[in-house]
Amino acid sequence: MTNAMTADLSSYLEEKRRVVHEAMARRMDVLPKESRLAQAMRYCLDAGGKRVRPILCIAAAEAVGGSQQDCLDAACALEFIHTYSLIHDDLPAMDDDDLRRGKPTCHKAFDEATAILAGDALLTYAFQVLCRPGPPSCESRMRVAEIIAEKAGWPGMVEGQMLDIQAEGKHISLNELENLHRKKTGALIEAAVLAGAVLAGADAARESALLEYAQKIGLLFQVTDDILNVSGSPEELGKAVGTDELREKSTYPSLLGLDGAREFARELTREALRALEGFDNRSDPLRALARYLENRRK
Amino acid sequence: MTNAMTADLSSYLEEKRRVVHEAMARRMDVLPKESRLAQAMRYCLDAGGKRVRPILCIAAAEAVGGSQQDCLDAACALEFIHTYSLIHDDLPAMDDDDLRRGKPTCHKAFDEATAILAGDALLTYAFQVLCRPGPPSCESRMRVAEIIAEKAGWPGMVEGQMLDIQAEGKHISLNELENLHRKKTGALIEAAVLAGAVLAGADAARESALLEYAQKIGLLFQVTDDILNVSGSPEELGKAVGTDELREKSTYPSLLGLDGAREFARELTREALRALEGFDNRSDPLRALARYLENRRK
Repeated sequence: MTNAMTADLSSYLEEKRRVVHEAMARRMDVLPKESRLAQAMRYCLDAGGKRVRPILCIAAAEAVGGSQQDCLDAACALEFIHTYSLIHDDLPAMDDDDLRRGKPTCHKAFDEATAILAGDALLTYAFQVLCRPGPPSCESRMRVAEIIAEKAGWPGMVEGQMLDIQAEGKHISLNELENLHRKKTGALIEAAVLAGAVLAGADAARESALLEYAQKIGLLFQVTDDILNVSGSPEELGKAVGTDELREKSTYPSLLGLDGAREFARELTREALRALEGFDNRSDPLRALARYLENRRK
Repeated sequence: MTNAMTADLSSYLEEKRRVVHEAMARRMDVLPKESRLAQAMRYCLDAGGKRVRPILCIAAAEAVGGSQQDCLDAACALEFIHTYSLIHDDLPAMDDDDLRRGKPTCHKAFDEATAILAGDALLTYAFQVLCRPGPPSCESRMRVAEIIAEKAGWPGMVEGQMLDIQAEGKHISLNELENLHRKKTGALIEAAVLAGAVLAGADAARESALLEYAQKIGLLFQVTDDILNVSGSPEELGKAVGTDELREKSTYPSLLGLDGAREFARELTREALRALEGFDNRSDPLRALARYLENRRK
């Protein structure tokens, strides 16, 4: 990646993060200030994060000529759902994590009951904003809501989290690992890209090419996550490293070796870029995002 | 309530329960049999329950000439959401209940992580079925999904559960108790009745009368729940009684006395019936349901 592209992507991401931040703030400002539930929801949303899913949604829409404005409800809903999933994953009964992005996790900053409810409320609020009337049309908004529910639910993310728990301390095959991650991490990334495509009115061929792209970067995201858990810096990541090995989790580095995992990440990046052949330069941010995910250090 | 009316309502409820049971089974049959997550979801749905919310949805639609068939997705979604809320409420960090309807609660039958995820998956699946294409129209289905999300989320049920936890061991006023219960129990009952009205294409006046009815029986439901917790039979209820007093919860009997709470229940029933004045005999099941709730023993 050249320096110029890095700089371009950085300013693109910065600008989109600002847009997403403002859109989320508008949707959170209506919640009552004095509610403990609302405080916990806001605490977790404000903890930061890269906003990868909302940005992917907008970037996918713009890649096929859609408008950012039409994506904002879906973009916020995706981040609400991602945030709820982190809150519940961090609970003592699940991963039992005390820190997230360098800050106390929700059940540490508040308490366990509040954390469970804040997750529930963020998930439900996602569908409240997805299902309100708005552009571009009832049909496309409802299709997006259905896609997101499917990818976030038992056919996707929640099942992935269940499989992840069941896999702990077990040796699983590469196929099982891929199935687990396609559900746990990949499904919501697919939902983000598909949502953008649908809201932009992409034709079937473009939609299917974007889905292919999303499947590749969804897996790429997890492969690099696994690599960072072995070789990353706790300071840059804002969370502990080496935890997968401690938990005896099967990961790409444990199954392929660190070099093998890095080669796999390169191949997934190439495939993601290939899926976008035939798209014009409006899809450059999607291309840059794939390269960024391959090379990310946090 | 005369014997004839009791018999009528019984067979009405039995028939509607069968319809709801079959509709839920069809929507659950697509889940993979071998998935632990799906097993936990099915276990909790099959634990029984009165199916009050799905039946209210159908009865409200039929009261204004709508079709049962058009309500089935919403009816199932309401029961999925109700069931998820019970699973999460029963968790050790919340009410810490071991039994529900005479059977081990989800985290007892499975484990805590599975119970959290089964709740999450049921909530998400509710919106998946609500947002798929179907009758009567995209606009009315999306409005129903939005209403249910609002009533089940931070403006409604989840906030009510939060307030309930915060009220434990405290003396709260009758106003605070009513606000808590309107959110915790009332909101989803309002959603059920409103969903039926919207799917049936009720005009604004009918919709508002049905909402008034729902608000009254929503509160009635909680008042009689509180009464049964004092004076009910554990065998009939399938759960422990006297638990509110043990937890030092403010309840209608604790604030109004048992007789006062019973008088309040009678008044709410009268007001619910008054809201239906001007409706023809197609709303008789709604009337009978109000009387049934007033006199229920489980």
